[in-house]
Amino acid sequence: MMLPDDLVQTPAQPTRLILLVLDGLGGLPHPEHGRTELEAARTPNLDGLAARSSLGVHTPIAPGVTPGSGPAHLALFGYDPLRYPIGRGALGALGVGLELSPGDVAIRVNLATLDKAGCITDRRAGRPSDAQGKKAVEALVAGIDLGGEVTATFVHEKEHRVVLRLRGEGLGAGLADTDPQVTGVPPLLPQALDPTDRASVRTAEILTRLVAQAREALEGIPGIDGLLLRGIAPYQPLPTMEARFGLRAAVHARYPMYRGVSRLVGMEVLGAPGTDEEALAQLEASFDSYDFHFLHVKAPDASGEDGDFDAKVAAIEAVDVWLPRLTALAPDVLLVTGDHSTPAAMAIHSWHPVPVLLHSRWARPTADTFGEGACRAGDLGSLRGVDLMSLALAHAGRLQKLGA
Amino acid sequence: MMLPDDLVQTPAQPTRLILLVLDGLGGLPHPEHGRTELEAARTPNLDGLAARSSLGVHTPIAPGVTPGSGPAHLALFGYDPLRYPIGRGALGALGVGLELSPGDVAIRVNLATLDKAGCITDRRAGRPSDAQGKKAVEALVAGIDLGGEVTATFVHEKEHRVVLRLRGEGLGAGLADTDPQVTGVPPLLPQALDPTDRASVRTAEILTRLVAQAREALEGIPGIDGLLLRGIAPYQPLPTMEARFGLRAAVHARYPMYRGVSRLVGMEVLGAPGTDEEALAQLEASFDSYDFHFLHVKAPDASGEDGDFDAKVAAIEAVDVWLPRLTALAPDVLLVTGDHSTPAAMAIHSWHPVPVLLHSRWARPTADTFGEGACRAGDLGSLRGVDLMSLALAHAGRLQKLGA
Repeated sequence: MMLPDDLVQTPAQPTRLILLVLDGLGGLPHPEHGRTELEAARTPNLDGLAARSSLGVHTPIAPGVTPGSGPAHLALFGYDPLRYPIGRGALGALGVGLELSPGDVAIRVNLATLDKAGCITDRRAGRPSDAQGKKAVEALVAGIDLGGEVTATFVHEKEHRVVLRLRGEGLGAGLADTDPQVTGVPPLLPQALDPTDRASVRTAEILTRLVAQAREALEGIPGIDGLLLRGIAPYQPLPTMEARFGLRAAVHARYPMYRGVSRLVGMEVLGAPGTDEEALAQLEASFDSYDFHFLHVKAPDASGEDGDFDAKVAAIEAVDVWLPRLTALAPDVLLVTGDHSTPAAMAIHSWHPVPVLLHSRWARPTADTFGEGACRAGDLGSLRGVDLMSLALAHAGRLQKLGA
Repeated sequence: MMLPDDLVQTPAQPTRLILLVLDGLGGLPHPEHGRTELEAARTPNLDGLAARSSLGVHTPIAPGVTPGSGPAHLALFGYDPLRYPIGRGALGALGVGLELSPGDVAIRVNLATLDKAGCITDRRAGRPSDAQGKKAVEALVAGIDLGGEVTATFVHEKEHRVVLRLRGEGLGAGLADTDPQVTGVPPLLPQALDPTDRASVRTAEILTRLVAQAREALEGIPGIDGLLLRGIAPYQPLPTMEARFGLRAAVHARYPMYRGVSRLVGMEVLGAPGTDEEALAQLEASFDSYDFHFLHVKAPDASGEDGDFDAKVAAIEAVDVWLPRLTALAPDVLLVTGDHSTPAAMAIHSWHPVPVLLHSRWARPTADTFGEGACRAGDLGSLRGVDLMSLALAHAGRLQKLGA
């Protein structure tokens, strides 16, 4: 028996759920006053909601494990990332909005600087500007021809990061990275992990041609001379949220990465909002058309990664200002949490437990404030990230009883 | 290694454990005063015991999962219900005290009202009186003859509910329910889920004869015309509590269902007490003869399902009055909890965590009151239901050290 999937039921009255993710929400105490970013923020609306909600903390993947955005969001969507592993290439492609079909191979590419002998001098090509990166991608598009049987599609992501999709019959993705992780040596040759895996051996040959053509295509671009291939991954679609949980779901997110991981589980991408305000408006406009809405806010994570405590506080306070627009929609379940912690003190993602607020009419409130301390003492206790979806489904009347 | 089974030891001095289950104990805050049923109840004896106990909360099966009574009790007995799935028919048979052997097939039967065309007009035969239900069962016993090779045993449970045991060689239980769940159509024909499963195909033929004979046998009973077969299940005995935990165990429960699930794990059924007082007296009289006593109190769940907050409070207070008779026995471990929550506000079983009180000389007390709030902050933290048995065994000195 697979919980909660085997218990999913359609409620007599349709119920609606909203998942509001404040990326990187969890924090660490400020050295002077001892409060975390969320505790220091003035959040009257979140605090008022907390008084009508169950609180808790979630550990995104497992104790001590710092998640990337992809796995962390998969867990929040109810997909154990250890059970549904997603190649980094596939996540990257979905992240830039590159459509993937079964059989495609997706690859993360670093633009790199090579010396005349072909040895790597900078694995990130000196972190080129986006304009410079895009120029390199244009040169690759113009200069690479795999002969029609297999097509290569390049999309620039950011700075030195590019996504590559290979499409064609009989491709394999059982290949090692060509990034040697050090400078002073040439890139590794594309190579199948298993020499009897003929599809991957053939794909290694294709990629060997591709990186050679890329060397020539990039000749006019100063400081960008070659490609490092990483996270070579097949595309395997996941069972959708509708198939697993009976939820027609939509994503409202400014950044491609979050739309990508949402598409992977079958959420509908209604648009590419340019601001949080536009994402919120998109949710409001489509509220009645979907059972589940995922609204993503990036700013707390970005300021946490900048190590800017005050900016992260301000980013959380900005969400609090428009929170009443979400509660005004009267969703049956409103789940507010982060995908992971990004303490300003660390200026990077961390493994620390993340505050959770679950509002529904069946809540057991324990505090009138939303913060790490209140959540730690909350009714939900300490949960794994992947269990939040089960709880949300229960609160929405969407799980039947187990046994008699 | 299977924990805790592989660590079980017999203590030098025999130790005794009592599990007191207040069915449906967990609740939700009252809209006026914010206290749950347990928090609102005046329970001086439970509060005094809490001050000498470890407190915590347990999630019966998994986050968000609402358990039926069978799975919830299996978990409390230390049997993960996802690992030891029990068919509803088998639970029902054990519930009415019908002895089961390997190879038997157990079925829950609804008495139903059919019209002249054989279509269902009431799937519960208008919830007949127990006297009327028993009369129907007598007619079935007299009128059904499967030819000696296979015997059918009927036992009346309550109102329209009957349990049927099929016993004979080569029976199968891979059959769909014949209850179509709606009225206005005839009962479904007994049918094997897998047409290549010969034992189940044969059993479907036998049951087809049985339901036809039942139509005739019931002709003299007004309003009861046919049978709906549900939860068709094989009997697979579980390893006993004595085999797994070294505990000779006895059950003291008014309701057949709870005696049934106890028998399934090898507990001894010493009688069918008619009141909680009789169940308590039975426990007292047999206290020295068993290592483990399970005492079941139904009233909190029943009043919770009625949506009656005050009646649930009163049911909890009634237990508190006689609690000193349990503590007077000086058990080494006294574990007080519920099998699941039944908040009066919901009038149904729910998934919410359940308060736990574990009294032993090795407790770490944290509060002098027994309630959701105190338990949430207790020393045991948040546990799965199935882990409580390990803890109880440890507190009783019945688990040895792991490793050196």
